[in-house]
Amino acid sequence: MRYELFYWPEIQGRGEFVRLALEDAGASYGDMARKPGGMNRMMAMMNGVRDKRPPFAPPFLKAGNLVIAQVANILFFLGPRLKLAPRDEAGRLWLHQLQLTVADFVKEIHDTHHPVGSGLYYEDQKPEARRYAENFLDERVPKYLGYFETVLKKSGGPFLLARKTTYIDLSIFQLIEGLRYAFPRAMKDIERKVPGLVEVRDKVAARPRIKAYLASPRRIAFNEMGIFRHYPELDR
Amino acid sequence: MRYELFYWPEIQGRGEFVRLALEDAGASYGDMARKPGGMNRMMAMMNGVRDKRPPFAPPFLKAGNLVIAQVANILFFLGPRLKLAPRDEAGRLWLHQLQLTVADFVKEIHDTHHPVGSGLYYEDQKPEARRYAENFLDERVPKYLGYFETVLKKSGGPFLLARKTTYIDLSIFQLIEGLRYAFPRAMKDIERKVPGLVEVRDKVAARPRIKAYLASPRRIAFNEMGIFRHYPELDR
Repeated sequence: MRYELFYWPEIQGRGEFVRLALEDAGASYGDMARKPGGMNRMMAMMNGVRDKRPPFAPPFLKAGNLVIAQVANILFFLGPRLKLAPRDEAGRLWLHQLQLTVADFVKEIHDTHHPVGSGLYYEDQKPEARRYAENFLDERVPKYLGYFETVLKKSGGPFLLARKTTYIDLSIFQLIEGLRYAFPRAMKDIERKVPGLVEVRDKVAARPRIKAYLASPRRIAFNEMGIFRHYPELDR
Repeated sequence: MRYELFYWPEIQGRGEFVRLALEDAGASYGDMARKPGGMNRMMAMMNGVRDKRPPFAPPFLKAGNLVIAQVANILFFLGPRLKLAPRDEAGRLWLHQLQLTVADFVKEIHDTHHPVGSGLYYEDQKPEARRYAENFLDERVPKYLGYFETVLKKSGGPFLLARKTTYIDLSIFQLIEGLRYAFPRAMKDIERKVPGLVEVRDKVAARPRIKAYLASPRRIAFNEMGIFRHYPELDR
């Protein structure tokens, strides 16, 4: 199966959680909006010009006749196909539940620079962003990462679902990479309390296909248009 | 199967989307945290005292040995069992995708009164809430409801997945009820643009089991501790 991924071409953003799974599995896929004419095709699909089931927002994945949106939904679909998920229902639901908690966390990360409205500029909501980010770094990051650290410990490790790598481990890698980029000072302190997750991050970074991907032009650099933005005034 | 639902006992909140599905199906379930000792049991499960897979937050559902958290995940699991979802994979994923978009919307609704931090009081973030709510009512509510109206039209109706009622219709009912409670002035205008969704709301409200549920003490009244809060200063 050749997959077609549709996502904003200039950022890692939410699409990156899907890219990492496709790359780790060595799947055949196209990052469609980065190709000539791709943006037009993506917008047409969202506008439901020909589709009866248009997605609300990117990323979405085309797999044969199926068009699937929402990162966690895409990974739920891809997981068993890419051998990045258990096959039993209980295991798949548990993994999905963890990924939905990642999705909640990602939204809160996004809101550090857009607490008032995603359609407004960061420059127009800087005081609110500073207040939001302070609470976010003090309360929310330790709470989310602490939760995933607990899940890891309870599984027995070395991965969040125990012995086998699944897509949640790739997402943990991306969360830590992104938080390090956005909040380097705060993360120095916070990481000390989640050593297990840092080990998961290191193990994922060392996987041959991920390593090759990160060194390739397919990996877009972090920047100030994505989810994880480095605004020093928001860091500790 | 008897289900056990765990959720904060004093609010509709996110748990209501699950309650509506259980009630509409006439399922056998207990609303556990509203029973004596139930809150302690819920907190123990979240703290992972005995469970290897503790949920991050309520609501969660116990079904036999399974414990499932995240509203959309719970509904994905319950859907076919309660006959509120199609049985084919494509249909289930599409319905789940819509429910995940509801989840995103619910988070934005919550943030109208908590734009800076969910752990802070509303009273300590009122100016930010006013700015947030204005943008929310002007941009976000029309965008989300307009999207669901488009989905309804494209399906051919009368429900969002065409002929059969599914759990997304129950969620649309709850969204409209909640938004009417929280923002009665703004909703008068907005509803005119989504007449199809209002019809779905009316159809759901007239379903015998939903009607009985809404009139029963099991339906908690809207209040200023839940997701949908009526603060007149945030309305248009």
